[in-house]
Amino acid sequence: MTEGVPADASVADLSLEEKASLTSGADFWTTKPIDRLGIPSIMMTDGPHGLRKQGGDTDHLGLAGSVPATCFPPAVGLSASFDPELAERVGVALGVESAIEDVAVILGPGINIKRSPLCGRNFEYMSEDPIVSGALGAGLVRGIESQGVGSSLKHFAANNQETDRLRVSADVDPRPLREIYLRGFQRVVEDTQPWTVMCSYNRLNGIHTSEDPWLLTKVLRDEWGFQGIVVSDWGAVNNRVAGIAAGLDLEMPSSSGRTDAEVVAAVREGRLEEGALDVVVERLLALIRKAGARPAAIGPLDVDAHHELAREVAGRSIVLLKNDDATLPLASAQSVAVIGAFAQEPRFQGAGSSQINPTRLDNALDQIVGHGGQDNVFFAQGFTVDASGEADALRAAAVALAASTDVALLFLGVPAAEESEGFDREHIDLPAVQLELLDAVLAVNPNVVVVLSNGGVVALPFTDRVPAILETWLLGQAGGSAVADVLYGAVNPSGKLAETIPLRLEDTPAFGNFPGEFGHVRYGEGLLVGYRWYDAKGLDVRYPFGHGLSYTTFEIGDAAASVDSGGDVIVTVPVTNTGGVAGREVVQVYTSLPGSTVQRPPRELKAFESVLLEPGQTTDVSLTVRRRDLAYWDVRVDGWVVEGGSYLVEVGASSRDIRSSTTVDVDGDAVSLPISMDSSFEEVLADPTVGPELQAAIAAQFGDQDDLVKMLANFPVGRLDGFPLPRAEIIALVEKAGAAQRRP
Amino acid sequence: MTEGVPADASVADLSLEEKASLTSGADFWTTKPIDRLGIPSIMMTDGPHGLRKQGGDTDHLGLAGSVPATCFPPAVGLSASFDPELAERVGVALGVESAIEDVAVILGPGINIKRSPLCGRNFEYMSEDPIVSGALGAGLVRGIESQGVGSSLKHFAANNQETDRLRVSADVDPRPLREIYLRGFQRVVEDTQPWTVMCSYNRLNGIHTSEDPWLLTKVLRDEWGFQGIVVSDWGAVNNRVAGIAAGLDLEMPSSSGRTDAEVVAAVREGRLEEGALDVVVERLLALIRKAGARPAAIGPLDVDAHHELAREVAGRSIVLLKNDDATLPLASAQSVAVIGAFAQEPRFQGAGSSQINPTRLDNALDQIVGHGGQDNVFFAQGFTVDASGEADALRAAAVALAASTDVALLFLGVPAAEESEGFDREHIDLPAVQLELLDAVLAVNPNVVVVLSNGGVVALPFTDRVPAILETWLLGQAGGSAVADVLYGAVNPSGKLAETIPLRLEDTPAFGNFPGEFGHVRYGEGLLVGYRWYDAKGLDVRYPFGHGLSYTTFEIGDAAASVDSGGDVIVTVPVTNTGGVAGREVVQVYTSLPGSTVQRPPRELKAFESVLLEPGQTTDVSLTVRRRDLAYWDVRVDGWVVEGGSYLVEVGASSRDIRSSTTVDVDGDAVSLPISMDSSFEEVLADPTVGPELQAAIAAQFGDQDDLVKMLANFPVGRLDGFPLPRAEIIALVEKAGAAQRRP
Repeated sequence: MTEGVPADASVADLSLEEKASLTSGADFWTTKPIDRLGIPSIMMTDGPHGLRKQGGDTDHLGLAGSVPATCFPPAVGLSASFDPELAERVGVALGVESAIEDVAVILGPGINIKRSPLCGRNFEYMSEDPIVSGALGAGLVRGIESQGVGSSLKHFAANNQETDRLRVSADVDPRPLREIYLRGFQRVVEDTQPWTVMCSYNRLNGIHTSEDPWLLTKVLRDEWGFQGIVVSDWGAVNNRVAGIAAGLDLEMPSSSGRTDAEVVAAVREGRLEEGALDVVVERLLALIRKAGARPAAIGPLDVDAHHELAREVAGRSIVLLKNDDATLPLASAQSVAVIGAFAQEPRFQGAGSSQINPTRLDNALDQIVGHGGQDNVFFAQGFTVDASGEADALRAAAVALAASTDVALLFLGVPAAEESEGFDREHIDLPAVQLELLDAVLAVNPNVVVVLSNGGVVALPFTDRVPAILETWLLGQAGGSAVADVLYGAVNPSGKLAETIPLRLEDTPAFGNFPGEFGHVRYGEGLLVGYRWYDAKGLDVRYPFGHGLSYTTFEIGDAAASVDSGGDVIVTVPVTNTGGVAGREVVQVYTSLPGSTVQRPPRELKAFESVLLEPGQTTDVSLTVRRRDLAYWDVRVDGWVVEGGSYLVEVGASSRDIRSSTTVDVDGDAVSLPISMDSSFEEVLADPTVGPELQAAIAAQFGDQDDLVKMLANFPVGRLDGFPLPRAEIIALVEKAGAAQRRP
Repeated sequence: MTEGVPADASVADLSLEEKASLTSGADFWTTKPIDRLGIPSIMMTDGPHGLRKQGGDTDHLGLAGSVPATCFPPAVGLSASFDPELAERVGVALGVESAIEDVAVILGPGINIKRSPLCGRNFEYMSEDPIVSGALGAGLVRGIESQGVGSSLKHFAANNQETDRLRVSADVDPRPLREIYLRGFQRVVEDTQPWTVMCSYNRLNGIHTSEDPWLLTKVLRDEWGFQGIVVSDWGAVNNRVAGIAAGLDLEMPSSSGRTDAEVVAAVREGRLEEGALDVVVERLLALIRKAGARPAAIGPLDVDAHHELAREVAGRSIVLLKNDDATLPLASAQSVAVIGAFAQEPRFQGAGSSQINPTRLDNALDQIVGHGGQDNVFFAQGFTVDASGEADALRAAAVALAASTDVALLFLGVPAAEESEGFDREHIDLPAVQLELLDAVLAVNPNVVVVLSNGGVVALPFTDRVPAILETWLLGQAGGSAVADVLYGAVNPSGKLAETIPLRLEDTPAFGNFPGEFGHVRYGEGLLVGYRWYDAKGLDVRYPFGHGLSYTTFEIGDAAASVDSGGDVIVTVPVTNTGGVAGREVVQVYTSLPGSTVQRPPRELKAFESVLLEPGQTTDVSLTVRRRDLAYWDVRVDGWVVEGGSYLVEVGASSRDIRSSTTVDVDGDAVSLPISMDSSFEEVLADPTVGPELQAAIAAQFGDQDDLVKMLANFPVGRLDGFPLPRAEIIALVEKAGAAQRRP
């Protein structure tokens, strides 16, 4: 267990050099102790979905092997559960494992928006939707920090690609930045007050996030009330002195003292106020104190219990995309051809900083044999993941096998070499060797179940030709068991798509604006990220956001919506399991405001709930749409504004399977926009105080020339000299309108 | 004729107040004279496609009736000719009419890019492509200025919508700004050196164009070499003093002396250098001198000759979109139902500042009777343009008529009230009353020819149900004759689409980013404007850019391409008229660079030529792709760069009807990008001087861990302390690379 900071240690006790030294790492994973004051070092390690603590001496890149830890499903899987409470249970387990290993802060969750399916790190992120990302992220933080271990909410912010990630500027307009890219971070910070936030590698609108006072201080601390520390992503510091002034508390990893010296010099030379450094050091001491206050960990790790949790979560992560004619679940008596390298050697996690050394590893093939028995289950490799070897021979053997069985399970997926932290994908296609295998198998046995392993979504051109598709993402160390559980119905699938599966890469919102060039990437799709794009454009998709089937069926009844005393919208809706087995439905609430004065996507997810129901059971689900989540970011007032009006509330089983809708009247926030000489004729005409006078003046001059008025409606009143009144009279009108607005 | 400035008058003779007074209008249309020095007033009037000179006293909005003038086809029509020489002939006629009316400067051409079909002023603009816009615009300028009359190239720049046009900021990234929105302006300025350029109403990247020194001085004058004056669009001046400092020469219309006084005060108070004002006044005096040097006009106006030219140009503007089974041309013996209000009361121009008082006005109905005879041609109104009146009765009468004739000509179109300067359209649909009429007519007579009148493109959902569609845009005063000429084959149609006709508004590039809100519009589609978008996304369109049929057929043979001594690419291709009548083909040359290191649309128009061929005639067409038009804007060096490589050259009859392709090797421009500590490992590894050393160092540390290297490739070499070499050695490598680059 970490030693705490002595209660009486304070920033005043530290020399300038000691203060500077506290603000950067001692090595790859730990902070510097100050022995003379009894201030200990604390350790941080990677791991949104498992602990990656390097054993023994750490190398200077943090790439050596790590101690065994439970590999839970990466975010791409966990988020498909749409269940913050499940995320919280995973968080608890991560906290427990961290505590046992004396890790003070575990570096996660990662909640960046999946802007493009090409992002190489999408497997570490939650969703294309900020409410899903924020709610699931908050669940993880709650769980981790319940164990006296800190989390690190990352990567803050707008780090939505790997290409040129340390230099590229994410050029994002205010509304999408606030409403899409920051909204999830805001939710996690406001709901959970995480110990740390990790700034990202990239620049945001031209400024390195590691030295952006707007992002790290104005938004994060002043607006959202963040009290913890900001740690740099490993290597994200560009200018350390600017970073401290902006609100970056800790540089990781070590700079071998180089940047500490820069900080000292900057203070000595008056380029950095010592007070700014003191604030940072106070925050760091507070973190070290919190780490020291952690209760004694209960060890050693209960490997079996955590593996079982990993299996349960993996089962909740799987999305049944298609299941014609009840192809699934399989009966144990069916003869099954298991085909595909991934069945034997699972892709269970992604490459990069999140790569776990798992305590054990299930593969699907063994588990399928467990369900179906040796006599019914047969295996053929079908292909090699890297497309090496005798493709024709492998394919031929697989086809021969498939021809002789009741059903063929084809384990297809993206090779590990194609998706990783550090670079982006260049396409969303499965390898040709796999698609050719699928064609060949289909030619001899149409009863094919495709089981997909992939961190980012893939195109599914074969959808109409196969009866069933199981999207199993990357599922962590127990994924093989979970896949078999779902295939044989031991687990009823309940995962939903937290990201749209498009028909084509060309249809995706960021296409043409990803990954940018020459150090800039323009977020040209604006607010229309993910399903917001496909819905606004009326584009067909392969499978929509929120989609996912079950082995049972659910009826979603008539929704009702009302505003509670706090201004939140409470949506209630009865949900019934109308099928034959127990199962979970994720009830989804989308809102929109028809006739809004601002741009709005056709629908936006605002609340969701995962409900477990026995066959025949009905329950009334109550969901809360937070008032703040109805707000748009108004650049005129640089703030959140809830527009008043009659909101459409849609309740469904996916973004394109709306089962019930209702409306609810919401009072708007007051926004004061004073009339000025820069106001347009249209705006002044709409002003209650002076509009009628201007109307009369125009009518007196031009009669009923509506076309003329329409053509000139967008002219500022101060621009056309003498139209329709002398300038002095226009000025008087504007002043009169202003005086009326200033009155209480 | 305008009096000239006395030869010896110079800026030194003018008082500060006189200088300031010269820089704004005397009234709506004229500059201020300085009588004591004999400096005359000059007049400017509206008119990209005809003179709009107000007779007698001008009102302060410039809206009173104007003297009769020839109304040529607006730009939407003229541009369909793809013929700069035809544009030049129109320009000559405009110059002649201006000279006769003693107008010094006629305000046009307008060459803003058609970013969205919703722009209310698209009828005044040329194309979605900058080469078409620039080439046609240059033709008009050449013609106008050949008569000693000035043109005004407008609206500079990025004025691509009417919504909030006086305040909205067009937020455009450097490459699309340079390669799409400014490229046409650059061509016209460099090719023709117009007397004046008109700055636009809008802001560009946050700055009013009327006070943007980057736009009006650095780009326009320093880079492009513009020598003339910049006049404000009427009412575009926001801050007059800032405007003069930025390079705005003339504020129009009058500010009643208010802003002149501001200029005087600014000079007196040291906020504006008098030298800057002197430069502006020198340029204004030069303009007034040029106006005074105009030869005596040959008047009066030859109304008939100009009407005939207007008819010829209108015939060249019409685009035959579809013509199954040789439905067109009509035989004079066919019985014809002419249906639709537009046949009798043509929409021949748009509303706003370009609205001409025509010398005469042809309607299609009369001219069709002229071709087909009273006994064969019958008319029914079918609908009212404003959808008022007895729609059912009008429709019933039209249907009854159509049932009894060989062919029904349906004149459909956009009501004038829906498109105008001053506001944008909200949809691209024809009125429901017209579509219902079409359905009803088709039910009794499938032999329907749709004749479209519209300034902006419209959706054509009925395309598959009619045998022929004629797109006649707005055709000016002789359009009625030209339409009849084409319908009966007296003129063989040769117009081509200078803008894509999309299937749906939702498919268009700016959808979701148009018209913006709160004073900003994001050009989120970047480079992918018009056909560049549809091609990049692989989207189906109704009719592609460059499309247009003929009553004859053409064969485009094998193209050859080579680089001439000046670096331009010369493309030669044989073209044969393989049909039975004389006709024109517009040969189109598109280029691309497969494997380019920068983003490129799949193909971009770089040259075109309209060729008239007799039946059976073959000609070798030679087209020049300017080297500068192959360049992309490189933000790293803030300049144009031609990337070296093997360019694909495609020659076709439309952007999606490529008939021949070849390649041509082009030498690239040298671009020097020095290695620095901010260079990525990838970049340093590619450096010929030090790349091998770094490679060896990485190999020594990590062996053949390619995945690791790939993951870290995008890290700046200065960022990861000690990887893979001590920092001092990395610094030495960077310096060594820099030293090698500095050597000659």
